[in-house]
Amino acid sequence: MIRIALDAMGGDNAPQAEVEGAVRALNELAPEFVIQLVGRRDAIEAELARHPGVDPARLEIHEAPDVIGMDEKPLAAIRKKPNSSMVVALGLQKAGASDALVSAGNTGALLVGSTILLGLHDGVDRATVASLIPSTDDPVLLLDAGATVDCSPRELVGFAWLGTIYMQDVLGRPNPKVGLLNVGEEDEKGNAAAKEAHQLLGQASGINYVGNVEGRDIVAGHHAFGMLDIVVCDGFVGNIVLKFYESVAKLIVRLVKRESPAVLQQPEIRGVFRHLDYSEYGGAPLLGVKGVAIVCHGSSSPNAFKNAIRVASQAVAHDLSAHIGAKFARRDAEAGA
Amino acid sequence: MIRIALDAMGGDNAPQAEVEGAVRALNELAPEFVIQLVGRRDAIEAELARHPGVDPARLEIHEAPDVIGMDEKPLAAIRKKPNSSMVVALGLQKAGASDALVSAGNTGALLVGSTILLGLHDGVDRATVASLIPSTDDPVLLLDAGATVDCSPRELVGFAWLGTIYMQDVLGRPNPKVGLLNVGEEDEKGNAAAKEAHQLLGQASGINYVGNVEGRDIVAGHHAFGMLDIVVCDGFVGNIVLKFYESVAKLIVRLVKRESPAVLQQPEIRGVFRHLDYSEYGGAPLLGVKGVAIVCHGSSSPNAFKNAIRVASQAVAHDLSAHIGAKFARRDAEAGA
Repeated sequence: MIRIALDAMGGDNAPQAEVEGAVRALNELAPEFVIQLVGRRDAIEAELARHPGVDPARLEIHEAPDVIGMDEKPLAAIRKKPNSSMVVALGLQKAGASDALVSAGNTGALLVGSTILLGLHDGVDRATVASLIPSTDDPVLLLDAGATVDCSPRELVGFAWLGTIYMQDVLGRPNPKVGLLNVGEEDEKGNAAAKEAHQLLGQASGINYVGNVEGRDIVAGHHAFGMLDIVVCDGFVGNIVLKFYESVAKLIVRLVKRESPAVLQQPEIRGVFRHLDYSEYGGAPLLGVKGVAIVCHGSSSPNAFKNAIRVASQAVAHDLSAHIGAKFARRDAEAGA
Repeated sequence: MIRIALDAMGGDNAPQAEVEGAVRALNELAPEFVIQLVGRRDAIEAELARHPGVDPARLEIHEAPDVIGMDEKPLAAIRKKPNSSMVVALGLQKAGASDALVSAGNTGALLVGSTILLGLHDGVDRATVASLIPSTDDPVLLLDAGATVDCSPRELVGFAWLGTIYMQDVLGRPNPKVGLLNVGEEDEKGNAAAKEAHQLLGQASGINYVGNVEGRDIVAGHHAFGMLDIVVCDGFVGNIVLKFYESVAKLIVRLVKRESPAVLQQPEIRGVFRHLDYSEYGGAPLLGVKGVAIVCHGSSSPNAFKNAIRVASQAVAHDLSAHIGAKFARRDAEAGA
C-alpha cells in the first residue's frame, strides 16, 4: 500500500478542488494507492458526499483543524500551528504513516516544514523546488524555482544532481541534458556564482552537463545540443522566469482576443494555450528532503491536483527519495576520499 | 544640424540593412538631421547606389576600414582597433563632430568603448542598456538589460533614475512608474542586493517608485498600480528575461503553426506577433554616458535601424544626456550636503 497525503485545506478553492482532484486521481491510480485527505473532517466529508462512488477503503481522512495562511511567515507558522493540515500531513510522513505529501498551501511553509520535519538527505545543502515548464514537446525542468534566492555554486551543482535523479526516476529520461542558465555560452560569462558553478558542473560526475545556456534556450533548445531537459539557476532568477512565462502566455491570449477573438475559439488554438498552462503539469517536487513533498499552485484546479498526486505516486513508486540519498552519500564519500 | 552616426558595419547584414535603414530614416526625419555612415566607403557606396533618390547633403560617409567582431573581447577590441567603424564613430562624437551613435555591433564593445571614449556623467557608477519590451499597449523599459551582471544596490537606484529621465525625455511619459524586479512584493523579499535596493528606492527623490514587482507584473501590470513603465533589475536577470521573452513568442508561433497553420496567415494574428517583436522597437539606449549611444540587435532589419535612428534623434533633440548629467550632479550635491 502506498499512501499519498493531500493537504485538503491548502489551495484557494479548498477543500473542493482538493477533494475532487483526489477522487479523479483514485480513478487512475493502481489499487495499492490510498489517498489521505488531511484537514477539517466536516468540510472534507461535505465535499466527499458529492462523490458517492468512491471506495472508502482507498480514502482516509485525517483531522487537522488549523490552516497555515498564504501570508504567514513560514517558520513561525510551522512552529505555532502543529494542528495545521500541512504540519499534520508532514507528521504522518515523518512517523512512517504516509509516503508523500501534495499541498497547494504556503510554499515557504512547505519548504521549511519539510526541511525541519522530514530532514534533508546527508550531503544536500538545500532543498529545491523543481518546476516543469512547457516547451515544444516534452516539458523542461527548471530549478530552483524560488526556494533559495541567493545560491552558492555548490548548491547549484546540487540542484543539477537533484534534477537529474528526478528526471530519471519520475519522467523516465535516462540521460537528461542539464544547462546552467547564464547570459552567454562562454566560460567567462555570468555573475560570480554562475561562473564558479559552470566550472564545478563541468567536473561533476553523474550529470550530463551541456554548458551555459541563455534565456532563449530554455524553451527553444540550442543549435549545438537540441532541447534541454533541465535548466539550473538560483531561486531569484527561477521565480522571475516562471512567473514571467505565465504572464507572457496570458498577454498573448489578451492580444489575440483583442485583434481576432474568433481565433481563441478554435480547438487547436485552445490546445496550444492549454499546453502552455504549466499549472496542469502536476505540481513541483521539493527535492532533497527525506521523503516526498509536491508543491501545487494555490489556484490549482481539480485536474492539477490529480496530476500532482500522480507525480507523487511516481516519486514513491520509483523510490526517488532513496535514490537521492544514495547519490549524495556517494558525493560525500568521494569528497572525503 | 543634428548628426547621427550609424555604425554601417556592425550588424549581421552589414552594410545592406544599415544603409537601407538610414535611407528610410532620412525620409522621416526633419531636414536638420544628417546621418553619418561609418565604415568601408566602397561597401557603403555600393549599397547607396541602390538608393538613388537620397539627398547627398544629408548623408556623410566616414571611412573606417576595420570591424570589431561579435566574439572579440570588448576592451581588447576597442584598444586594438582604433580604425574600426565603432571606434571611429565614437571618436567623432568625442570630438564634437557627431551627436549620437547607433550600432548593431558587439554590445560589450559598445558599452566599454562608450564608457572609455565618451565617459560617464559624474555620479553615474555604471552605464546601463535599457531595452523596451512589448506589453499590451505601451512598451515597458527594462534595465539593466545585460550590461552589468553583478549590481550594487546603489547601481540599481542609478538605473531607476536613468530610466526615469529617458522615459520623460524620449518617450514623453512625465511620471513613469518604476518597479524593482523581485520574487514577491513584501519588503523582506529578494536577494541581498534587491532587499537593500528596495529600501534605497523607497527613499530616493525624483523616482515614482511603486515597490517590488514580480515576473508576472512586467508585461501584465499589477492590480494595485496598473501597468509599469520601468522595471529595474541587474543585468544577469535582465538579459535572461529579455532573451526568454523573445523565445516564448517564437515558441507560441511554432506551436500555433503546428496545430493550425492557417491562423498565422491572418493579418490580425501577424499583427500580434509583430507587436511582440521588440527588435522593431528601435534599439536600446546606453544610458549614463556623456553622449548618445543606441544598441541594436545584430540581426536588425532596415526598419529596426530606422527606428533606432529615430530614438537617437529624439535623445539628441530632447537633450537627454545633459538632463542625465544635471540629475546626477544634484544627487552628488545632495549627498555631499
